Amino acid sequence: MDTTVFETHESAIRGYCRNFPTVFESASGARQVDEDGKSYLDFFAGAGVLNFGHNNPRMKDALIEFIQADGVAHSLDTYTTTKRDFISRFQEVILEPRGMDHRMQFMGPTGSNAVEAAMKLARRATGRREIVAFSHGFHGMTLGSLAATANDAFRQWAGVPLDNILRLPFESAPGGRTAIAEYAAALKDPSSGLLPPAAFLVEPIQAEGGVNVASASWLHEVQDLAHEVGALLIFDDIQAGIGRTGSYFSFDGMGLDPDIITLAKGLGGFGTPIAMNLNKPEVDDHWAPGAHTGTFRGQGLSFVAGTVALDYFTDESFLADVLAKGEVMRERLTRIASAHRDDGWEVRGRGMIQGLDTGDGAFAKKLQQECFDRGLLIGPCGSGGRVIKLIPPLIIPDEELAEGLDLLEQAIDATVKDL
Amino acid sequence: MDTTVFETHESAIRGYCRNFPTVFESASGARQVDEDGKSYLDFFAGAGVLNFGHNNPRMKDALIEFIQADGVAHSLDTYTTTKRDFISRFQEVILEPRGMDHRMQFMGPTGSNAVEAAMKLARRATGRREIVAFSHGFHGMTLGSLAATANDAFRQWAGVPLDNILRLPFESAPGGRTAIAEYAAALKDPSSGLLPPAAFLVEPIQAEGGVNVASASWLHEVQDLAHEVGALLIFDDIQAGIGRTGSYFSFDGMGLDPDIITLAKGLGGFGTPIAMNLNKPEVDDHWAPGAHTGTFRGQGLSFVAGTVALDYFTDESFLADVLAKGEVMRERLTRIASAHRDDGWEVRGRGMIQGLDTGDGAFAKKLQQECFDRGLLIGPCGSGGRVIKLIPPLIIPDEELAEGLDLLEQAIDATVKDL
Amino acid sequence: MDTTVFETHESAIRGYCRNFPTVFESASGARQVDEDGKSYLDFFAGAGVLNFGHNNPRMKDALIEFIQADGVAHSLDTYTTTKRDFISRFQEVILEPRGMDHRMQFMGPTGSNAVEAAMKLARRATGRREIVAFSHGFHGMTLGSLAATANDAFRQWAGVPLDNILRLPFESAPGGRTAIAEYAAALKDPSSGLLPPAAFLVEPIQAEGGVNVASASWLHEVQDLAHEVGALLIFDDIQAGIGRTGSYFSFDGMGLDPDIITLAKGLGGFGTPIAMNLNKPEVDDHWAPGAHTGTFRGQGLSFVAGTVALDYFTDESFLADVLAKGEVMRERLTRIASAHRDDGWEVRGRGMIQGLDTGDGAFAKKLQQECFDRGLLIGPCGSGGRVIKLIPPLIIPDEELAEGLDLLEQAIDATVKDL
Amino acid sequence: MDTTVFETHESAIRGYCRNFPTVFESASGARQVDEDGKSYLDFFAGAGVLNFGHNNPRMKDALIEFIQADGVAHSLDTYTTTKRDFISRFQEVILEPRGMDHRMQFMGPTGSNAVEAAMKLARRATGRREIVAFSHGFHGMTLGSLAATANDAFRQWAGVPLDNILRLPFESAPGGRTAIAEYAAALKDPSSGLLPPAAFLVEPIQAEGGVNVASASWLHEVQDLAHEVGALLIFDDIQAGIGRTGSYFSFDGMGLDPDIITLAKGLGGFGTPIAMNLNKPEVDDHWAPGAHTGTFRGQGLSFVAGTVALDYFTDESFLADVLAKGEVMRERLTRIASAHRDDGWEVRGRGMIQGLDTGDGAFAKKLQQECFDRGLLIGPCGSGGRVIKLIPPLIIPDEELAEGLDLLEQAIDATVKDL
Repeated sequence: MDTTVFETHESAIRGYCRNFPTVFESASGARQVDEDGKSYLDFFAGAGVLNFGHNNPRMKDALIEFIQADGVAHSLDTYTTTKRDFISRFQEVILEPRGMDHRMQFMGPTGSNAVEAAMKLARRATGRREIVAFSHGFHGMTLGSLAATANDAFRQWAGVPLDNILRLPFESAPGGRTAIAEYAAALKDPSSGLLPPAAFLVEPIQAEGGVNVASASWLHEVQDLAHEVGALLIFDDIQAGIGRTGSYFSFDGMGLDPDIITLAKGLGGFGTPIAMNLNKPEVDDHWAPGAHTGTFRGQGLSFVAGTVALDYFTDESFLADVLAKGEVMRERLTRIASAHRDDGWEVRGRGMIQGLDTGDGAFAKKLQQECFDRGLLIGPCGSGGRVIKLIPPLIIPDEELAEGLDLLEQAIDATVKDL
Repeated sequence: MDTTVFETHESAIRGYCRNFPTVFESASGARQVDEDGKSYLDFFAGAGVLNFGHNNPRMKDALIEFIQADGVAHSLDTYTTTKRDFISRFQEVILEPRGMDHRMQFMGPTGSNAVEAAMKLARRATGRREIVAFSHGFHGMTLGSLAATANDAFRQWAGVPLDNILRLPFESAPGGRTAIAEYAAALKDPSSGLLPPAAFLVEPIQAEGGVNVASASWLHEVQDLAHEVGALLIFDDIQAGIGRTGSYFSFDGMGLDPDIITLAKGLGGFGTPIAMNLNKPEVDDHWAPGAHTGTFRGQGLSFVAGTVALDYFTDESFLADVLAKGEVMRERLTRIASAHRDDGWEVRGRGMIQGLDTGDGAFAKKLQQECFDRGLLIGPCGSGGRVIKLIPPLIIPDEELAEGLDLLEQAIDATVKDL
Repeated sequence: MDTTVFETHESAIRGYCRNFPTVFESASGARQVDEDGKSYLDFFAGAGVLNFGHNNPRMKDALIEFIQADGVAHSLDTYTTTKRDFISRFQEVILEPRGMDHRMQFMGPTGSNAVEAAMKLARRATGRREIVAFSHGFHGMTLGSLAATANDAFRQWAGVPLDNILRLPFESAPGGRTAIAEYAAALKDPSSGLLPPAAFLVEPIQAEGGVNVASASWLHEVQDLAHEVGALLIFDDIQAGIGRTGSYFSFDGMGLDPDIITLAKGLGGFGTPIAMNLNKPEVDDHWAPGAHTGTFRGQGLSFVAGTVALDYFTDESFLADVLAKGEVMRERLTRIASAHRDDGWEVRGRGMIQGLDTGDGAFAKKLQQECFDRGLLIGPCGSGGRVIKLIPPLIIPDEELAEGLDLLEQAIDATVKDL
Repeated sequence: MDTTVFETHESAIRGYCRNFPTVFESASGARQVDEDGKSYLDFFAGAGVLNFGHNNPRMKDALIEFIQADGVAHSLDTYTTTKRDFISRFQEVILEPRGMDHRMQFMGPTGSNAVEAAMKLARRATGRREIVAFSHGFHGMTLGSLAATANDAFRQWAGVPLDNILRLPFESAPGGRTAIAEYAAALKDPSSGLLPPAAFLVEPIQAEGGVNVASASWLHEVQDLAHEVGALLIFDDIQAGIGRTGSYFSFDGMGLDPDIITLAKGLGGFGTPIAMNLNKPEVDDHWAPGAHTGTFRGQGLSFVAGTVALDYFTDESFLADVLAKGEVMRERLTRIASAHRDDGWEVRGRGMIQGLDTGDGAFAKKLQQECFDRGLLIGPCGSGGRVIKLIPPLIIPDEELAEGLDLLEQAIDATVKDL
């Protein structure tokens, strides 16, 4: 296993490779294999991208067929048959059953780009400047989305002021439960120093922020205030959407009605990049053609694999299965946490995104290493990286899920012992 | 040909589809075919992405093989064998022969993201805030790169001030030839109101800006001033690089030495998204691991196709061919322009990026339509869209190049007659 | 009484003249007389400037003597005998007895300028950018101080973003009691999106903001947090200081220890402009000579009258008298408010700054007019102008105070009847 | 002469006292006397305030009479008889003869405040954000005016970004002669990255900036562009106005027509603070009552002395005298400069503001000291403080002017010899 090439010629910024110090060669389902033949269970799923597993066989077939047929791999925002298939299928499988009439907007295929586009649209639609974002929120790395991201470790790299964002505590942060009401009061007071915002940008479940799950009632409180003050409600469902929580959107079934939904990560299915915003028509009408462009906004491979991904949501058993596996994860973590009750360990999550808050970033880092050594890939998140986030591919077989949880438990024991 | 799905469910922001009103089904080499079987010569190449043609056969084979072998399609910045191949090959084919020791940095796979990362790094490395960008420059759509972009039509959508950029005229703009010297004088004057910048962000050839070609001497003037005032020199070679001008970088052979080079578009070869910055080691050392992340920064398909693309640059005849075809384009355009000398038509470009400045955006728009009707895809650029930019795939056969130029000339005649 | 000159040649921005539609000719003590000979009791004192009355006789003598002796009326920050007298006297009467070693800084003679200087110093001393200011705070009209001012009616005129301020609710605003603790928690959290501020800028008593009186415990909470996070504590005592509350500083006797205190308004005694900051030496040492200049920062007339003003604070009975008169005001207002208990009227204040919150800006505006007609000058303040603020000269005779309160009560009755 | 009090209790920011290390006790006409009885000729005039001399006898009488009569010293923007007199007199003596219908706006009595108000008004009137300011410009110390000020030594103290200003070179700076035309071209180009500004903020003569005198033709070029692009023209005449150049405004007689003129410094006549903007009615109408307030905007003493000052401009011989004395200054300086031709010395100015550019800040600083030792007060200005600026009171007797110029010449000789 030779990493010299990376160490010599790749930028010092490379990160995950330091936590997973090997060279991966192939991957399938919930497993990755390195070039020494060692196999790893993947409970990280490429930061929440690989909901349908590595090299999903249905997608492989579709992609190969597409390539062989000289499909249009790169189309900007011209029309292609492949893109039409994706849009039709998304409409049919996702929007129509929910009675949603949102329009699909494609842009540069990163979540950050989706958030940037949503911020532009919200500012244009309202003629306002400030956007409310929340503590522990993660929305991307480019200057606009980074301003909305809460993590100091990322923010410090901007090199310029990150303005035009008002920061409120997320529901679970100190003051979070009263913050919306207090902010509402302030907006009514002409001497509060605060003006109505263009939008509220919220992750219904904060993934990077530590698997913080907003309650339906709090989200409704946010939505009600948005409506009351003429602001848009933007849900960033980039990591928690696309089936991760046991429903397509992380906020399904709560009676919520966001103006813009940002999607990316799992949308392309195969790890193929795509980002898409769902905009309510009356909001979307504020766009002019070409107002926010992007070279890679028409990705044939992503449309193809993404269309296959949508098929999963026509199979009733799929999400039931996700919920069941989520329950398995939850129970195991809860049992583990209860054994560490005195250290304040806590479990949070919904469906197949579950976090174990150990309260200690250094511990979590060691644990990640112990897991890696045992053949399990996990990623810490949250303040100081103290939360172990489990987001295995949704299609992981039950026995691999159990195996991974066993490995996790063994690694925890070893790490605790080592303290 | 049914476009109802798009008109009903896609965002109002869709743009190119309005200029190319058809549904493309397949594409190969320099041709796209719509679902009615009509074939188009592509002189736009997906906005400069498809330097090696649509569905390049060598890349198709490599991609299919990779998929069949369960290669790691999505890897963030963990190490993979495929990524190692790409890095090694880039080092061997591009950097080493030029004596460059730049390090490769991967990020979210859009040019905008590459520019954002470069701006962060320049600001961090210098501890300064302002970056010099130029009139007619195009650098992306996210808030940081958009601040550097000059086009009002894009800037107006920010909804917030676009600050921390100092705008100077590009060499060819009014005042451009003296601007660097005057700026240098101002930086020496403690009462100029100007502080030394973090970087100069320049496209050696402005593609979107109207095919404006900077002279070597002007670029050296910029570089000298950057060095003198402790600022970085960033070359944005996203559209003009990767062989487009008849050399790998658009600035090859000029004795220039940029601190950061941003690449994207053609780098992935197949239309597969990838962005990469080349950072000098002493600059790159300012990064901390994970300082600028991005979900899709480890794209197996892009590494695979991008590695194939690099092979072209080991074949001496390839770039010679590009130059020869560029000469053909140049001659034809020059002949056309000379016939419209009284209207001030002008030809600009290098290698296979050539622009015909008609001085009239409305005319260029009509011409685009005439071309489309005749089966030729072209894109206007420059102030008000008045420049016809020709950027066919570099691998276009001579006869298709001639055919496309004939179509262009006929379309021009028809459009002129129609005035 | 001819106001044509004003209506024709003065800017449309003129304001108070619309509420007090007459032309004043002379003034003495707590009375102003217009050119028709009508006399007004002044419970507004030039927005809190005339603590020692109009044309204070001791000051008149001193000023005339100074002018006759060709004293240096205008000195920038050169040394003059008059300035030395003022500094010595301030040190002797105010600082030394309190064990304060703050240094005196003079600047352009407006409160706004004092605040701007304090903000610069805090940012320089800490190397930080953001300053915490509070809802209902008023700190001035220039761009820096305006950013700290909370009132939308003023903020909307900036025409540019008012950034670099974090707004928290004042103690009495919704959420105000928990805001400091929640903010403290957020500052400890690396994913809160908040960085430690340069300073907390607080009015211990918000005068313009509606006579909101901070408790000692809340101010200590702010001070403790400032110390904990390495931020400065700036008290803006421009309107509530200089004896107004029955002590020299509004926060005297609470054991507080601000790093910077901004003073202006009453400091010059006669209405003669002067502004002064008191900076702790270790903070003040961050200034370089001439770092913040101002043409009118050496005002001989202000030093002379201001030195006379300081004499009042060597007379023990003076502040006792202020407290006694404050009590008279308080009792009367409390009695009035209790009669309007059902409308939620509330009395707030300390010493001779007392506010009657009527909850209704339109009512307060009418009341101001009724008072004016009866020969009493008052000014509304607070959100929507709903609070009647009483700030008569501190030297007002008891009988005039009583007379003014009678007039107020009659005017209230008339206004209420008129509803 | 005891300066301990200052050294112990005054802020480290004190500046001029370091260059003029004495304690002044009295002042009259063009002379100041320190407490040791040493007399100084004042060629600095309190930074351009004391155009009518220290303790102008006519003003002394008027002030004493006003104080004795209990005139209204402090009136905010209520109407007073004194203010009416000032406005009437200004209208009669200054505006009417020039056919100007500008309205007078009063604000906090500093030049900085005048500039801040002008910037607000320009931004409101145009709905635009950016204001064009020039290299070497000086406009004040508060955050808005500081953004327009060009001097790094001042700007570095902001502690926050100074945005919303576009900086162009002043006529005499490198590129200055072509900058307006190039900027005009850029504003017409939709891809220049520049939008039309709210205003051009110009000093017709830059005083602090180094006595840089704009030509009438350049000022017309600025004005024409302002009109063409719908921007306002703001003249900052704070230091060069009020008779300094031999006419009331520094730009009199050039056929110019600014939308806003900012005045302060000499306007109050006696060193008594006042600031006033002259706004064209159609611009002024954008103000709402109370939009920009300020405690000390109604200064009785300033109105009284300022009204006396206006009398000078009804005396035809006064300005003729200023021009004659300006010629004396000019000739002497020209003779001096010609002797130092090889060092590139240069004389610039108009009327009684004349600058000797020695090209060397260290030299100028020494010269200032030599002058002080000889009993002459002068102040350096310009980049690095290399320009000796002579701005004696306009009423200086011929013999004192000659005496001062002699002292200057002797000091120059001594300083040169000392090199």
